[in-house]
Amino acid sequence: MNFPSKLIEDAVNAFASLPGIGKKTALRLTLNLLKREEHEVNAFLSSLQKMKANVGYCKSCNNISDAQECEICTNKQRNHQLICIVADFRDVIAVESTNQFRGVYHVLGGLISPMDGIGPNDLNLENLVDRITKNEATEILLALATTVEGDTTNFYIYRKLKDVNIKISTIARGMAVGEDIEYTDEVTLGRSIINRVPFENTFSSK
Amino acid sequence: MNFPSKLIEDAVNAFASLPGIGKKTALRLTLNLLKREEHEVNAFLSSLQKMKANVGYCKSCNNISDAQECEICTNKQRNHQLICIVADFRDVIAVESTNQFRGVYHVLGGLISPMDGIGPNDLNLENLVDRITKNEATEILLALATTVEGDTTNFYIYRKLKDVNIKISTIARGMAVGEDIEYTDEVTLGRSIINRVPFENTFSSK
Repeated sequence: MNFPSKLIEDAVNAFASLPGIGKKTALRLTLNLLKREEHEVNAFLSSLQKMKANVGYCKSCNNISDAQECEICTNKQRNHQLICIVADFRDVIAVESTNQFRGVYHVLGGLISPMDGIGPNDLNLENLVDRITKNEATEILLALATTVEGDTTNFYIYRKLKDVNIKISTIARGMAVGEDIEYTDEVTLGRSIINRVPFENTFSSK
Repeated sequence: MNFPSKLIEDAVNAFASLPGIGKKTALRLTLNLLKREEHEVNAFLSSLQKMKANVGYCKSCNNISDAQECEICTNKQRNHQLICIVADFRDVIAVESTNQFRGVYHVLGGLISPMDGIGPNDLNLENLVDRITKNEATEILLALATTVEGDTTNFYIYRKLKDVNIKISTIARGMAVGEDIEYTDEVTLGRSIINRVPFENTFSSK
């Protein structure tokens, strides 16, 4: 694309450097900003700038946080003896949205993936055992992706904690709610038969 | 979504205010910025800020421009007697990308659309006749969308210029290059038969 303005071109390139944003979309976003009122654009830029300047990571769980410790770790109402291990900050949001979990989190910052050169040392695993001791944790809930990388990481953590006296569970694998038997893949369906649960459990939440 | 950080939430809302960006995409963009180096984010923000502060409109053709007059209007190499009328700045980029047009532009800033409450007075049409006189223009090329709005605007301009002694042409409507006869809609195919051109013309460009 030939831009008649160098400044527009720079702005388009800035937007296009974001993941999933191509040149055409970047141009649409740039023109949208250009058409807005000055103060709106300033508010837009300042919210991004403040976010970058002030957001850090929780020193306990590695979740994204405005303060040294995140709101979940500082919340006394939550069960600090139940630690849910997730790969990413986005997974915390996903689990929180279910309203089914009242424990605390431990954010790994990724999954073991030899293909991408990510080993156990690249993950936030060092202080996990200390945290278990400090929190007097009784259960670890592994909530990782049901992929090869997720399973590898699950297994690594399971091995790492085998000498620690703690219950280790993983989130259930089975049919998604609202799915047809006919269209469920056979591995998932097989798992949901092996891991069948008493009928009453499908109603209860704890 | 429940965000553990107010600052993240603000940044996500800022991105989500852009057209075509939903909450999930906005979160991905926010996290991408968060992971980048400080100076990269500053460059990102400053290019948007500079764009907003300094980009204006060309006083001749209403195209987007860094200066009072755009690069195309100030270019002596271009044919100022041939004026291409387009709806939007993006259309200038599209026409320029063809490398088939060496005239100048006139950007309307929209199309007549009674459904959206856009009338002729909302478009940049006032100085068109003055420009034609000033440039001693010999031809107006209408390059508007082949929609009801585009046709309405074409017709309005055609009527407006009927007392001005100038050739008025529109871009050709016909089969897209690389298309199959079988899959071309009948209106387009019909137009391309009515507007058939001497075979030699398909090779030449001027």
